[in-house]
Amino acid sequence: MTEPPIEEVDRPWEVLERLLDAGDREQLASYLTGLGASDAARCIDRLDEEHRDLVLASLEPEKAAELLDVLAAAQGREMLEHSAPETVAAILEELGSDEQADILNSLEQVDAEAVLERMAPEAAESVRTLTSYPSDTAGGLMASEFLTFAATTPAAEVIEELRRQVDEMDDLDVQYIYVNGDDGALVGALPLRNLVLARSKRPIGEVMIKDPKTIAVTATLDELVDVFEETGFLGLPVVDEAHRQLGVVHRSDIDDAWDERAEMRRLKAQGIVGGEELRSMAVWRRSYRRLSWPSVNILLNVLAASVIASYQDTLSAVIALAVFLPIISDMSGCSGNQAVAVSMRELTLGIVKPVDVFYVWRKELAVGVLNGIVLGMLLAGTAWLWQGNAMLGAVVGCALALNTLVAVSIGGAVPLVLKRFNMDPALASGPILTTLTDMCGFFLVLSLAASAMQHLT
Amino acid sequence: MTEPPIEEVDRPWEVLERLLDAGDREQLASYLTGLGASDAARCIDRLDEEHRDLVLASLEPEKAAELLDVLAAAQGREMLEHSAPETVAAILEELGSDEQADILNSLEQVDAEAVLERMAPEAAESVRTLTSYPSDTAGGLMASEFLTFAATTPAAEVIEELRRQVDEMDDLDVQYIYVNGDDGALVGALPLRNLVLARSKRPIGEVMIKDPKTIAVTATLDELVDVFEETGFLGLPVVDEAHRQLGVVHRSDIDDAWDERAEMRRLKAQGIVGGEELRSMAVWRRSYRRLSWPSVNILLNVLAASVIASYQDTLSAVIALAVFLPIISDMSGCSGNQAVAVSMRELTLGIVKPVDVFYVWRKELAVGVLNGIVLGMLLAGTAWLWQGNAMLGAVVGCALALNTLVAVSIGGAVPLVLKRFNMDPALASGPILTTLTDMCGFFLVLSLAASAMQHLT
Repeated sequence: MTEPPIEEVDRPWEVLERLLDAGDREQLASYLTGLGASDAARCIDRLDEEHRDLVLASLEPEKAAELLDVLAAAQGREMLEHSAPETVAAILEELGSDEQADILNSLEQVDAEAVLERMAPEAAESVRTLTSYPSDTAGGLMASEFLTFAATTPAAEVIEELRRQVDEMDDLDVQYIYVNGDDGALVGALPLRNLVLARSKRPIGEVMIKDPKTIAVTATLDELVDVFEETGFLGLPVVDEAHRQLGVVHRSDIDDAWDERAEMRRLKAQGIVGGEELRSMAVWRRSYRRLSWPSVNILLNVLAASVIASYQDTLSAVIALAVFLPIISDMSGCSGNQAVAVSMRELTLGIVKPVDVFYVWRKELAVGVLNGIVLGMLLAGTAWLWQGNAMLGAVVGCALALNTLVAVSIGGAVPLVLKRFNMDPALASGPILTTLTDMCGFFLVLSLAASAMQHLT
Repeated sequence: MTEPPIEEVDRPWEVLERLLDAGDREQLASYLTGLGASDAARCIDRLDEEHRDLVLASLEPEKAAELLDVLAAAQGREMLEHSAPETVAAILEELGSDEQADILNSLEQVDAEAVLERMAPEAAESVRTLTSYPSDTAGGLMASEFLTFAATTPAAEVIEELRRQVDEMDDLDVQYIYVNGDDGALVGALPLRNLVLARSKRPIGEVMIKDPKTIAVTATLDELVDVFEETGFLGLPVVDEAHRQLGVVHRSDIDDAWDERAEMRRLKAQGIVGGEELRSMAVWRRSYRRLSWPSVNILLNVLAASVIASYQDTLSAVIALAVFLPIISDMSGCSGNQAVAVSMRELTLGIVKPVDVFYVWRKELAVGVLNGIVLGMLLAGTAWLWQGNAMLGAVVGCALALNTLVAVSIGGAVPLVLKRFNMDPALASGPILTTLTDMCGFFLVLSLAASAMQHLT
């Protein structure tokens, strides 16, 4: 059976379904490899559930591990959660210790112990150790594979040993060799480059970098990002309190963990809470997860709208005001969100700290005054032209001008205040901003209108 | 003058100001280094403009380059834009060719030619070449420093040569050595690891990776990200049409460029257009840049609110409806944004393509029906309890249920449609979604209310 090239197939997942039904491991593997990363992800997404659950078990563990590597993490998790423990165990055996621990930690519906029992005892032991550390710390992010030699080993002997291990090295992507002293504590790191350049009989203790930068096993992801940002290292040794080496953290793993966290925060800020959603997930699960945020939001909305409810007399006297309430709400939200974006960015870059809230507020007030005047005049002019009532223009223009000031103040300050109290500013800033500026905006429009009532009607 | 440790200084930028006034280059450099990355960024941010403009010129070029490395890119740009061409030239000389080109490209208010004239002719030439490529392509992202040897060179000789260049190597962070054939075309790549393991007399042509993966100088950032994602390489050679090597793209530079682009898109989606804003920038510039988005938004808002204006009779008959208009608007926007977030994410991961718009729509409809019913019933119940009018509850509940369907359909589809027409979905999806769902939501509430009028009043 020769399949046509991918570009010519309109629905490549149907080819995949046929291959899965036929059960030919090699053809399946070669077809998936030929698809490339993003087409493979798309294909798997479009399979029906029955076929999707077959994919991992229908591949050699090595090929299955390669597939997981190209798929989105959430996609891989879904497939592993629907696999038998022995399939999961066989695939994990193909991965590095840090990935093993990572994946096993993230599977909610899989019995981790059942998987570990089916792995080689040594590998299972190291995964058990790694999963015992919190996932966003050096312990949870490190790999437990590293090369270590005594400081007295001659360079040539290290190179010989490396030659012997050359097959494994390809997997390890070794950049550094670690050097330990008599008591087992870490005393140095040896970049591969120094090893190349060393005369063959010199003990590596003489060419190593002494007292290399190390990472405590308890270091947080934030600390790790800072360290890698400030230094150029590709990997750093992780040590316990006695300065014994437990593993290595790689720059690429830290970058990945950071990106993933940023992505999850971004999704949260857009109302996708409780983990990533893929449209291939069951509809009840997608629906349930998505409901968690709007069902809270409805309460915040009622709170904001209660301001309108308390001014129903004013509204019924000047019904045109109702047209401008959503405009004031949206425009203020827009200005406030800009301030939130700048504060979030400056917090990330370390340019501001929570204690700088008054400095930020002052800077926001300056912009708020200028932009409030401009936007207020724009809205006032629009309202006047549209409704033919200059006083109505003045009321909504003034309200927007003042509320722009309120919005940028809240938008600028809230992320810092949330950070101060160790809450996630990405998640909560938006709702707090919207609710407060809506309440304030509705109040400003309607109370200004009430006090100018004789000129409005 | 001994400064107290940073933690004890409440306002470290005042110390910095004193050091700048004193003009002691070494003390200044050692104070800045002692601050660490994020404190340095914060300190620079809080200096007044006069002092900030002094910083780069007050440091040795090497230290100034190190400072730029720890600061946010936008901060560095601001400082360089206020520096004399000779200061900029001296600092650029300390950086790699790719960074030189990058920075020079990004400086809007600096005369690039004046800077290049003050640099060493050879360096200036290579920067001129690099800046001639579009910045988001392999040509614009590559470094022009790389090590290349003829295929016939024995391994030992390459190692000897590396030993001689050891000082430069530290800067280059060499991972691969490139091998060229008789005609100057690239024929192989040699990982440092293979060099270590090779017997000393073997020509490197025998241990190199033959026909290594190469990148065309015209490759786009998207293509580069895909290549690095699918392969484990830390760097890849960039070649011209004749397969001659022009430079090397490093994984870390591609990651940085990608992150920067993602960050700029995120800021755009929150209304910060025209480049990153720092609160240390001039207030008129911050104000002007921020105005660009809300002043367009006001028109979209008027468009949406015109639906309300055309139903003023219905509104004045049932004034309580005005309370629910902003709620319908916000709740629908919330559901629509969730769909946008999932579509953006699936587009990024390659799980969906623009042609999949009907598939996405079908998947969104399923969630929309479920969540529309739940949220509609929630709002209906709230309205009934609050306003004591069951029919009013039914009207706003039905309107929200139907508009949730509309919102998730638009939210799910719009990013794919925008992508299809090569527009940036991150920027335009939000405004399109909000305007359309507002119009539709207002129409649904008010037309349903109009047709149920006899039961409402």
